[in-house]
Amino acid sequence: MTDRATPSDTYSYLGPAGTFTEAALKLVEAAAGKPWRSVNNVGEALDDVVTGRSVGAVIAIENSVDGGVSATQDALARIPGVRIVGEYLVPVDFVLVARHGTALSDVRTVNAHPVAYAQTHGWLEANVPGHGHIPASSNVAAATALLDEHPVADAAVAPPGITDHHDLAVLASSIGDNASAVTRFVLVSRTLAIPERTGADKTSVIVELPSEHPGALVDMLEQFATRGINMGLLSSRPIGDELGRYRFVIDLDGHVHDERVADALLGLRRFSPRVTFLGSYPRADGFRPEVSARYSDEAFVEARDWLRAIVSGETDAG
Amino acid sequence: MTDRATPSDTYSYLGPAGTFTEAALKLVEAAAGKPWRSVNNVGEALDDVVTGRSVGAVIAIENSVDGGVSATQDALARIPGVRIVGEYLVPVDFVLVARHGTALSDVRTVNAHPVAYAQTHGWLEANVPGHGHIPASSNVAAATALLDEHPVADAAVAPPGITDHHDLAVLASSIGDNASAVTRFVLVSRTLAIPERTGADKTSVIVELPSEHPGALVDMLEQFATRGINMGLLSSRPIGDELGRYRFVIDLDGHVHDERVADALLGLRRFSPRVTFLGSYPRADGFRPEVSARYSDEAFVEARDWLRAIVSGETDAG
Amino acid sequence: MTDRATPSDTYSYLGPAGTFTEAALKLVEAAAGKPWRSVNNVGEALDDVVTGRSVGAVIAIENSVDGGVSATQDALARIPGVRIVGEYLVPVDFVLVARHGTALSDVRTVNAHPVAYAQTHGWLEANVPGHGHIPASSNVAAATALLDEHPVADAAVAPPGITDHHDLAVLASSIGDNASAVTRFVLVSRTLAIPERTGADKTSVIVELPSEHPGALVDMLEQFATRGINMGLLSSRPIGDELGRYRFVIDLDGHVHDERVADALLGLRRFSPRVTFLGSYPRADGFRPEVSARYSDEAFVEARDWLRAIVSGETDAG
Amino acid sequence: MTDRATPSDTYSYLGPAGTFTEAALKLVEAAAGKPWRSVNNVGEALDDVVTGRSVGAVIAIENSVDGGVSATQDALARIPGVRIVGEYLVPVDFVLVARHGTALSDVRTVNAHPVAYAQTHGWLEANVPGHGHIPASSNVAAATALLDEHPVADAAVAPPGITDHHDLAVLASSIGDNASAVTRFVLVSRTLAIPERTGADKTSVIVELPSEHPGALVDMLEQFATRGINMGLLSSRPIGDELGRYRFVIDLDGHVHDERVADALLGLRRFSPRVTFLGSYPRADGFRPEVSARYSDEAFVEARDWLRAIVSGETDAG
Repeated sequence: MTDRATPSDTYSYLGPAGTFTEAALKLVEAAAGKPWRSVNNVGEALDDVVTGRSVGAVIAIENSVDGGVSATQDALARIPGVRIVGEYLVPVDFVLVARHGTALSDVRTVNAHPVAYAQTHGWLEANVPGHGHIPASSNVAAATALLDEHPVADAAVAPPGITDHHDLAVLASSIGDNASAVTRFVLVSRTLAIPERTGADKTSVIVELPSEHPGALVDMLEQFATRGINMGLLSSRPIGDELGRYRFVIDLDGHVHDERVADALLGLRRFSPRVTFLGSYPRADGFRPEVSARYSDEAFVEARDWLRAIVSGETDAG
Repeated sequence: MTDRATPSDTYSYLGPAGTFTEAALKLVEAAAGKPWRSVNNVGEALDDVVTGRSVGAVIAIENSVDGGVSATQDALARIPGVRIVGEYLVPVDFVLVARHGTALSDVRTVNAHPVAYAQTHGWLEANVPGHGHIPASSNVAAATALLDEHPVADAAVAPPGITDHHDLAVLASSIGDNASAVTRFVLVSRTLAIPERTGADKTSVIVELPSEHPGALVDMLEQFATRGINMGLLSSRPIGDELGRYRFVIDLDGHVHDERVADALLGLRRFSPRVTFLGSYPRADGFRPEVSARYSDEAFVEARDWLRAIVSGETDAG
Repeated sequence: MTDRATPSDTYSYLGPAGTFTEAALKLVEAAAGKPWRSVNNVGEALDDVVTGRSVGAVIAIENSVDGGVSATQDALARIPGVRIVGEYLVPVDFVLVARHGTALSDVRTVNAHPVAYAQTHGWLEANVPGHGHIPASSNVAAATALLDEHPVADAAVAPPGITDHHDLAVLASSIGDNASAVTRFVLVSRTLAIPERTGADKTSVIVELPSEHPGALVDMLEQFATRGINMGLLSSRPIGDELGRYRFVIDLDGHVHDERVADALLGLRRFSPRVTFLGSYPRADGFRPEVSARYSDEAFVEARDWLRAIVSGETDAG
Repeated sequence: MTDRATPSDTYSYLGPAGTFTEAALKLVEAAAGKPWRSVNNVGEALDDVVTGRSVGAVIAIENSVDGGVSATQDALARIPGVRIVGEYLVPVDFVLVARHGTALSDVRTVNAHPVAYAQTHGWLEANVPGHGHIPASSNVAAATALLDEHPVADAAVAPPGITDHHDLAVLASSIGDNASAVTRFVLVSRTLAIPERTGADKTSVIVELPSEHPGALVDMLEQFATRGINMGLLSSRPIGDELGRYRFVIDLDGHVHDERVADALLGLRRFSPRVTFLGSYPRADGFRPEVSARYSDEAFVEARDWLRAIVSGETDAG
């Protein structure tokens, strides 16, 4: 689409170094040894991909505690020309850091990204009672701000690797309220080639409902249910023009090369005024759904052969 | 399939001459001027078609008062290799006939085919109170038996044209309890060529449910509902091996050349252990269902094009 | 309803003595030692019940080979004020009988009730090739007619017990084409008291669809599916006013005293322009459906208690 | 729950004075002339209500551009004992403010609450290219921070009324990207009395799905669809224990005193391992849904009367 002389091999991520997004990017095999570009927000990351400044970008799409990442979901709905080609899970773990010499009992104000704050709120309430919260733009920014001349807070919530990059003291470790918290990241790219089917795949789409009437959503979801397709994420996002109008961001079990998924996408497309195919890609958790014989590729192929023979008049196989 | 030297041009029908089935056969344009063969029952008619003795057979499939004709439905389920290629409606009207010299007040016993008897029962109760009923094997047989040496009945219920063929007196006309009663006949053939789509078509199938669980029938019918396809007839027939196991004889609005119908048949085939395609053919009543844009051929073609472009990597049309 | 001085204790059945219906009546405990009244058809039997001439009537409602008995289904839809209070299964078995001195090889014509003929057709084709069929009004009438001065047939298909009542020779036994064939009978009564719930019950209803649109039938059946209720019989019968309009005769697993069945009936009633409750009664086969916790009486009661507390403001149990 | 001698008449809201939440509170008639308490976050507001410190609290629940407010939805799921009793809509409009003497061309960094930033991002990109964003904890805090000794930003995104309270200069007005943007607030209370039905009502619930299988969500939504109930909001929120487990925050058209809504809640309760009733309350937009006769109160009452008569044996109304 752009006629760049030299295709980029750069990967964009929400920086700076030390963020969970960087940790996710470390899981992307193809990105090893390539230039990494730290950006400030999801829009910028997708923009890098669309313009060809980067070959891929890693962005957070869902958190097991905080839910769908609205900014990512809305950006994917708004920005055409990008595809999800991979999925990565990063456990969410936090430390409380401060300048050297600060004791936990000295802490009055805590700097933290709102999502990180939400995930450590229980610990902070219990261990830093009466603290004030200063919101930061990223987990790393919260920590580095402690080193400012006039720091706005006494301590910061940060990812565990923060002390690799910055000279800070760890006041407490593993302060997340949910030990199994995890964030799901996706790798987006401009390529149109769809990753190979592995048997443990996801397909992501964004769908608008045709109109508001009782049952429109049920009708849409039946496109999956009647083909034995489970949904992971179902997230409603406002279309934005008025209250009460939503689009749905949906993760399906399966790959567009699976007959049942392709058939469901056809059904969606006929049903909805707008369907955005975000991609089919290997699942990070490797889960392989059991598919009943009724929804297997063979069942679809066999049915097509049966019907083709009837329509062509080759058989009395009625 | 059979290697007959000379293909038959004969049409079979449930005789004898004068039956409603003969009246239906008179509506079959292709049968005009061809030999007609009177048979004794539906099985024999279908047998004529299967063996090639006849090129077509007209059989009653449904009556507006008496419902689906079980014998026909079961024969179509049992006998492979026949297709429905046309549909014909014949108004059902009856006369009460007797030997000359018999008055209505003389009638004590009435000979009538059970279906005809059911459709004139109200009139007979009112006008021949206390009469006995002798069942006949056909409407015409009931009448002709009056001319036997030792007739088993005093009068017979018969089609209006009976006096064209037999020397009988009409005691009363239009004795049917329902003035708008009509019987639906189908023309069956061994040909595999499907009649052209006219826009006012029906498709008939026989479907077995996959297993007995709450909702299996709903799942099956949703194959039609989710594609905007109306059903005419839905008739359950016992499979016969045990109580509670049924197959369903179903008439759909539309033609197998309609995308939505073809897609529904694919869904049925994947769902059901056994689907029999009985045929797509022009409706006798000429009714053209309105099809919403969502279920039009264009919607199916457009969706396929959209998906094909995605899968082939030609487009970012996601 | 009628002010008879002495309530009847008579039971009506489709006679004469020796029919399968009589065999079914023998299974009715309450009828032992009471007067039995032989009638000529289902309408007469129901009429006996409605007028109080009989306290109950046994009528065939379904055959495992031939399907729903249309006459019964239509009579139950037409005649108000009767309830099904019991169900009885009678194995269907046939003998071929003739006058003494007749050999099987002598038989040219066979007298048989059409349903009996359908169920022995295979045997007759194989063992009496080329025979003619004379339809009879009942299985017993077919046999007794052999003793007429001028018999219309050489042999008759009859129930096994026929020789207890009539002096006939058995030419062949167990001539039914399906060894496990069975006919289902119901006991109808005018009583409004509903038989006690046993845990192995059926509920029968007749339902009309609200209007013809794609999915109306699905909507109706979902009343059962969404409450975990399995259907036995689903039989469509023409309403009779025009082709394509049907009512449905439905047997449900469960008793109206089961919460899930009562709730489904409420849903039906709101949905349908006409619902006829035919009765809840013990199943003949004693089958007890497994009911998931979600559809148990407890689940319904608990949900009602929960909602009542909310609506009354007693609880924050929201 | 608390045994306070004097019930509070205070209302809590997300402050400080000048926020959109305060604007919503101004719409609450009952709060006029009562003490208002400014709090720092949704949890604190609900806590005020639960402990009885306040009689009510106004909290944002949804924004037409940014979607459901996760913090509110999660707090309502987590904190028992509160009910939604009112709904209020506040148009979202923003100004860009700065210290006196600052020109638009001087602005390099903009302080803004993340949601406000998202809603003015387009304008800022176009008019303050290359600006940096400093996240603030509230729209008002962003503005007041400009008056700090060492302000962290050159300008702030704030509500229009900000200059009533603070001595700041307006650099630009109506900078929201969507002129019709609106935020929906709810009034929560500890009272268990349900606001009267007005005919233009909403009911809010939080529902967990019983288990993950294809179609569980469809089954849940059919509880509404089969009763003709439209949904406004459907928002999925992670339960938090692991990826892929969600609860759903749902707004229904109608009041729990509407029979169809009560019946749907019963269905939900039987279906779901956990249903939280958040309340029925008048809609802010006054919209009165049309209810088809099939789902009217009369239909429910009539059906119950019908069934009661059957079960009690009073009628043959079957």
